Formats: sequence, structure tokens, C-alpha cells
Amino acid sequence: MRKVAVYPGTFDPITKGHISIIERGSKLFDHLIILVALRNEKNTLFSLEERTEMIKCAVAHIKNVSVEPFKGLLVEYMRTHKIKFILRGLRAVSDFDYELQMALINSELDPGIFTVFLAGQKEYIFLSSTIIKEIALYSDDVSKFVPDCVSKKITKRIRSKHVDNG
Amino acid sequence: MRKVAVYPGTFDPITKGHISIIERGSKLFDHLIILVALRNEKNTLFSLEERTEMIKCAVAHIKNVSVEPFKGLLVEYMRTHKIKFILRGLRAVSDFDYELQMALINSELDPGIFTVFLAGQKEYIFLSSTIIKEIALYSDDVSKFVPDCVSKKITKRIRSKHVDNG
Amino acid sequence: MRKVAVYPGTFDPITKGHISIIERGSKLFDHLIILVALRNEKNTLFSLEERTEMIKCAVAHIKNVSVEPFKGLLVEYMRTHKIKFILRGLRAVSDFDYELQMALINSELDPGIFTVFLAGQKEYIFLSSTIIKEIALYSDDVSKFVPDCVSKKITKRIRSKHVDNG
Amino acid sequence: MRKVAVYPGTFDPITKGHISIIERGSKLFDHLIILVALRNEKNTLFSLEERTEMIKCAVAHIKNVSVEPFKGLLVEYMRTHKIKFILRGLRAVSDFDYELQMALINSELDPGIFTVFLAGQKEYIFLSSTIIKEIALYSDDVSKFVPDCVSKKITKRIRSKHVDNG
Amino acid sequence: MRKVAVYPGTFDPITKGHISIIERGSKLFDHLIILVALRNEKNTLFSLEERTEMIKCAVAHIKNVSVEPFKGLLVEYMRTHKIKFILRGLRAVSDFDYELQMALINSELDPGIFTVFLAGQKEYIFLSSTIIKEIALYSDDVSKFVPDCVSKKITKRIRSKHVDNG
Amino acid sequence: MRKVAVYPGTFDPITKGHISIIERGSKLFDHLIILVALRNEKNTLFSLEERTEMIKCAVAHIKNVSVEPFKGLLVEYMRTHKIKFILRGLRAVSDFDYELQMALINSELDPGIFTVFLAGQKEYIFLSSTIIKEIALYSDDVSKFVPDCVSKKITKRIRSKHVDNG
Repeated sequence: MRKVAVYPGTFDPITKGHISIIERGSKLFDHLIILVALRNEKNTLFSLEERTEMIKCAVAHIKNVSVEPFKGLLVEYMRTHKIKFILRGLRAVSDFDYELQMALINSELDPGIFTVFLAGQKEYIFLSSTIIKEIALYSDDVSKFVPDCVSKKITKRIRSKHVDNG
Repeated sequence: MRKVAVYPGTFDPITKGHISIIERGSKLFDHLIILVALRNEKNTLFSLEERTEMIKCAVAHIKNVSVEPFKGLLVEYMRTHKIKFILRGLRAVSDFDYELQMALINSELDPGIFTVFLAGQKEYIFLSSTIIKEIALYSDDVSKFVPDCVSKKITKRIRSKHVDNG
Repeated sequence: MRKVAVYPGTFDPITKGHISIIERGSKLFDHLIILVALRNEKNTLFSLEERTEMIKCAVAHIKNVSVEPFKGLLVEYMRTHKIKFILRGLRAVSDFDYELQMALINSELDPGIFTVFLAGQKEYIFLSSTIIKEIALYSDDVSKFVPDCVSKKITKRIRSKHVDNG
Repeated sequence: MRKVAVYPGTFDPITKGHISIIERGSKLFDHLIILVALRNEKNTLFSLEERTEMIKCAVAHIKNVSVEPFKGLLVEYMRTHKIKFILRGLRAVSDFDYELQMALINSELDPGIFTVFLAGQKEYIFLSSTIIKEIALYSDDVSKFVPDCVSKKITKRIRSKHVDNG
Repeated sequence: MRKVAVYPGTFDPITKGHISIIERGSKLFDHLIILVALRNEKNTLFSLEERTEMIKCAVAHIKNVSVEPFKGLLVEYMRTHKIKFILRGLRAVSDFDYELQMALINSELDPGIFTVFLAGQKEYIFLSSTIIKEIALYSDDVSKFVPDCVSKKITKRIRSKHVDNG
Repeated sequence: MRKVAVYPGTFDPITKGHISIIERGSKLFDHLIILVALRNEKNTLFSLEERTEMIKCAVAHIKNVSVEPFKGLLVEYMRTHKIKFILRGLRAVSDFDYELQMALINSELDPGIFTVFLAGQKEYIFLSSTIIKEIALYSDDVSKFVPDCVSKKITKRIRSKHVDNG
């Protein structure tokens, strides 16, 4: 049977840490669907459409990966599409407790579903979208931390947002 | 390509928590090899052979799982057998830091290898072989916590060991 | 001497995890007062009055428990009412550090006061009000996670709020 | 109904941190029984009898506390004596995960039993018997950390043991 | 060579916990520069200028410490001023993961820079600016937790803010 | 005043993670004394003398560092030599709780003494002597993880020890 997983997240923006998880996930599963979650746009740096486009650009080199904007209850989506696996990254800077909680709740909502955790490469295990946004506010170069598809856009965007918010 | 993983451990003895991880792992991978690690027998309750036999008994109902005693460097074994994935369980009672450390070291020893973490079912997420051995010392019934193949043997064994050690 | 404790919280809304703590607390203390904290209503799903009413409904079956809306400094309230014990739940998904910090600060503010921690039942140890609100946004049924007094109201409310906030 | 709790531990030796928990526990419960666990004497500094005597000396000032040597399964003892509560201390240096695991296992073994956690006073929240033994090996004065009933004996004992073990 | 460090933070307001870190840091380094970070003033209790003034008042007794308002990328500031060390406090209530993440990112941005962590005194190891603001909302006296330069101002300010926000 | 620190540990054997801490510590302090702790030789892979020699070899390139075997109470040594600072490394795989406990106890034993924590470089933040010994048991090459002065000796030694212990 073909093994398909979803990799849900906000990806505001996608980082090299996420890419490292996606590359490993694409080796583990036959197909991987990146689900980009809708968020209130007042609270994100990039719109749902922009976040989706940047990811498509950043994962274009990986064959068995697709990207979709997503809104709704994750287990509903999975039931509809007959998908059994959720992929999540684990960082040293751990949201481990939160991740375990979500995994247990999702298995509670649908006992046929379970979560698969991967650690990324050592180089990116300390990255987060939040910290990259803090750095981009004052630095012209975050290309060490995000894919090329993102690095050109983030510095410009974050400064214009910052001016708006005062 | 066929996806094969190893699930290494001491399993002294195997618990329902381990079984829960194995059942999920058997759905994720095409084949799962349980590797039972050699330990100094002064320090284990059951011998390598006994531990291996109990696991074989406990996983007999799962088709794509095999069990092997194991001695040596894990990444060596995996290289020889062209296996890319290590399966490990994550418990709420977390050895998370240790698990992440091992995953990073193993990827360092062979960059083609990576570790896949699963959480077991809620019912068994607090179990450990150690705690079961403590209970079995004074309780006649640990069948809630270990497979039938184990529960008959553990109480008898742990008490005779305890007498020896004074 | 009669042993009385307060169980302070926001309870937005009360979950089966909270109920599990309250049931145990009611066996430990002669009387338990649930103190429902005032919050800026922009930030809560339910008003102080609604949260208080839902708890009253959910704990009606427990004799030695009462419910009160609350505003002010906890240790002041306790001094006025000559209460010595604070009850708090501990979840696997740990706010343990925060809880310990609050317990130490409260003992600093009044050395006669101390905090008693209980773990809830295994079934509910991963629940939080926050995660239930996320699920209720897209699911019609959260009755596994909240008392009946809450489940009827939460889905309707969270969706109307969400429409307002865009 | 009279509320009775057990406070189980090894107490090798009892510290001011333990005393702080016992003093608070004696205010919470009508009666508190300190259960001193049998251990293989090769591994403890003091014998079961010595540990029991030192605690009796150290808690003589607290009326509703008794001390008993103990061997067996805790929940068995509690069932026999119709006791419902286990008291445990929580330290900043957290064994929190282990404590939660034990609490859940004990509730599994007997659903009528549950664990009550207290934090000690700030002054003693970092103490452990292990660390005190390390200090006593080279320091003549550990009276800051242990009750008087212990401080006279520990330095002498630990040095004679150390000589034996080479 | 003269050893200079920066101690960056929001300090809204400075607490006795911060002072404890600064006093130790002033013994470790030849000179210590406290960098008070600009924040969106809607989100802080005190303005950048007020926070800076309160710290100047609170550290006036320490010779080798200076205070500066700060805006921008920390490693940029350090490069410009040829400073190699970042000082950060570690609390029992740990933001340890976050602190380690920031330390690694900063070393990534400039390999010549590294972070030095100190624990404060036991008395203040559980303090945070956030918790002090919660207490000050209803208590007239937080002088146990903040320097005199702060305690006079915080109660008045937090209540007038609270009235504004409803 | 000259700033001198001690860096105490077992170093059985010293790893590249330790070296990373020592290199940073040598930039922070005017002089750094590595104190190699006596341990029961049944429990260490290398004798105190061997461990001391390997470190001397591994840090020969750093001018302001010296190495000494050590036995006794750390704060006693520091008082005798008028040293005020203890250096300790912090790893992602955290012994953070233990480290904080030791730091507080040492400040309790001598209020003039405090502990300075450094994180090593990202590359070595997951290393431990224990894990290296596990790998060396079956691998001929641990030179990625330990200094050259160690890598030649460890494989040979660990295998001969293992044969002895059966």
C-alpha cells in the first residue's frame, strides 16, 4: 500500500530546518503533502498564498512532495483523503511536550491516525521561524537559515511591516 | 523501494508500551527488525536468548516483523544490511534528550541513516521495563503492563534473582 | 480543623481534565472553592459569568465544592478567608516550571500558605482549554474532552467569535 | 473521615528538604506515616534500622507523624491499611517525569489511590540525599542541609564506607 | 586584554533577580554594558527611557557597569564595539532551551562571539518581570522582588494602564 | 585583579565537547585550571593519571590552561587557592537541572564562589564521554569525537576492559 503523510504547519516562513525534515520525510514516505495552515493575516508576516508559493519554490527539487493551503480540522482532511500519517519535526529547542500532546489528541480524534517525528540535521536543529524574523529585522542576510526562495523576500517584508506597526 | 527499519533495544522484558510502538512501526515500514541488544547478564533479569524468545512470542501476530539478537555497532549492522531507518519510541516520561543525542550521533556516524520516532498509545505512554520490574517484585500480577508471553515468567524470575542478591 | 482549599484558574472553558482534579481535590479537602479569575473579555471565549455558570453546572454532583468569580490578589483572598491551601493540577504537558514558580512566590507573599499539586487521571492528562478551542473551531464534537455543560456551547461560540475576528 | 497519607522513600539519609515536606504534609493530613523502604544494604550508607531511627529523632517535634520500616508493594500496604493518599515532594531539580509516572502507575494498580505533591521551602528545594553524601565525603559540616539527628553521624559513616570500597 | 560583556534584555521592569546577575557579572568582567532593548511601547509597562532610568538608579552602586538603550541586531553592536561576550541569566524556571538557541544563533552570526550564563542567588531564582507585574496589579508592596528605584513606580503605573485597557 | 577559574570533571575521557568549552573558557579567564577528579578506578575506563595525561596532551596548544588531578571538596580547594569561579559546560542534552543544583549548593557552601556556564560549539553539543565509550566498543574510529591524544588509546582500552567484565 502507498504510504502518504501530511506535514502541517504555518511556515511563516519556511526555514532550512523545515526543508531538512521534508527531505527526510520524502525518503520515508511514498508521498508527502505539505499543508500550509490558514492564519489570521494580522499575525503572519506572509499571506497564506505567499507562504504556499515560497514552499513550492523551495521544495521544487523533491519529486514526491506536494504543497497545499489548508483550513479546517486536520483529522477531517486525513479521513477524507484516507491518509494515516502526520509528519512533525522535533527540535532540540523542544516543543516536545506540545508535540506529544497534539499527537495524543489526534489519535484520540481518530485512532487510525498517528504521528511520526523526525529530527532534522544538526546544523538546523536550533532554527525557528520566529527567531529568523527577529534577526531579519536588523540583518540584511538570513540566507544561512532560509532557502533562497525566502531570503530575498523576508528582509524587505519584515521592515515594511515594522514601520506600519510603529 | 522497500522500506525497512530496525527497532533496537534491551527489552528486559518487552512491555505493552514496546508492543504499541512495534504495531505502529509495522504499519509505517514494509519490514521491521527488532534488534535485541546483548548486555552483561549480571545486569539483566532475562538472558539475551530469553528476551529474544519472549519478543518472538509477543509479536507473532504481526506479519512483517522479525526478531534478532544483536551485538555490535548499530550503524555497522545497518550498513551491511542496507537499512536506512531506526525506529524509536518516545514516552511522556522523557528520555527525549537522550534519544535526540543518539539520533544525531548515528546520523554523524552515517549521514544516510536517520531515526524515526513514534509515540505509543496513551494507555502505555508511562510504562518502562524498570518500573515493571519494581512492581513484579511484590505483585503477582503485571499482566496489565506486559504481554502474556512475559507476565507468566517475570514474577517468578524477579523473586529468585532477588533472593540471590540478598 | 476543617481543611479548605482554593482552586484558582481561568477555566475558559472547564475541561474533563479540570473536573478530574476537582473530584480528587474534593476527596482531599473538607471544602474546595473554585475561584474563576476575571480576565480581559477580549481575550476569553466566554465571559466571567458564563465560565462561572458552566463550572457550577459541571460540578453540581460534588457536594463539598463551591464556585466563585474572583478578582484580586490570591493570597489576599486567602488571608481574608483564613484559607491555607492552594490546589493546582499538574499535566504531563508540563507547566511544571511555571507552577513551581507561582507556588514559591505565593509562599513568599504569605509563609502560612502552600500549594498542593494533583495529577489528574491518565485519560485527561494531555488536555488543555487552548487545544480544545482549536479543535472546536472545526469539529462539531468535543464531548470527549469537556463536560456536557460545556460541549453544547463551545462550538457555536467559537465559530461566531472567529467570524468577528476575521 | 480521617485523612491519612503515606510518605514513602529511602531517606539515606533524611534531609532538611524532606523535613520541610513532612512539616507541610502534617498540616494537610490528619496523620502522616513515613514509610522507610528496605534497600539492598550494599547500596545504602545507613541500614534500614538506622535510617528509621534518624527520622524518628528528626520528626519527634511533629505530633501527627509516625515512622515505619517498609518492604513490599506500596499499594498493597495502602489497601490493607485503607489509606488513600501518597505524599511526594517535588524539587526544582526535577524528577517530575519520574514522579508523574509513579503516580499514574499507582493509580492504575488501585484506582482509589492518588498522589499528592508538595513543593518544599525555597531554602531546601535544591537538596538531595545524593549530593549531601558527596559533600560529606570531604566536609566536616553538613548541618546546613540535614537535621541535627543526622549531621553527627553522616561524616563519620561516609568516610569509613569510603575506605572499605577503596 | 580588557574583558567587556553586554547584558541585553527588556527589563520591564528590572528585578532583584536581574540585579543579582549584574552583581556577579560585574565581578566576572572588567566592564558590563546593560543593553535595554527597544520594544513596541503598546506592549511594555514602562517606556524605553523609563526602563533605562530605573536601571541606572538600581545599579548606581556598581562601578564597572553602564546602561544604554538599544535598538538593532545584537551581534552588529558587538562587532562595532569589539565586544566578545554576551551575559545571560539562567533561572530554575527555565527558558534554558530558548537561551541555548539564542547562544547558538549568535555564535553562528559571528563565530568570535559567545554567551556566558550565570545563575542568580537562590533567593531570586524564581523571579520574572511578568510575575511581578501580575502581583503589582493587586498588591501595594513588591519591594521584596524589585529594587527600591522600581517599587515606588510599578504599582501606580500598572493600575493606570489596567484602567486604560479595561 | 587576575581572574582564575577551575573546570572540574571526570573526563573519562576528554571529548571535543570539553575542548570546545576549555577553548572558550581560556578566552574568558586569565587562567583556567582543569581539575581531574579521582574516581573509584573500577568505574572508570582510564586511571586518574591516564586521564590527566591525555588532557595535558589535548590542551597543550592553549597557553593559559593547566591540568591537575584532584581529590576533595571543590570549595575547599578554591578557598585555599583564592579562586572565585567554577566553569561548567552546558549541553543541549541537558544535565541543566543537576548543574543548577550543584551551582546553588556550591554558592551555599561558600557565598563568594559562583559558577559560570558556557555552551560549546554546535558541532559538539551532543557529545558525552559515555556515548563515546559505547561507540568505541565496536567502532575503530572515534576521531570525530575525541582529540587525537585520546582516539588512539580508547578503542584498545575499552575492548580489553570489556573482555575482563565478560
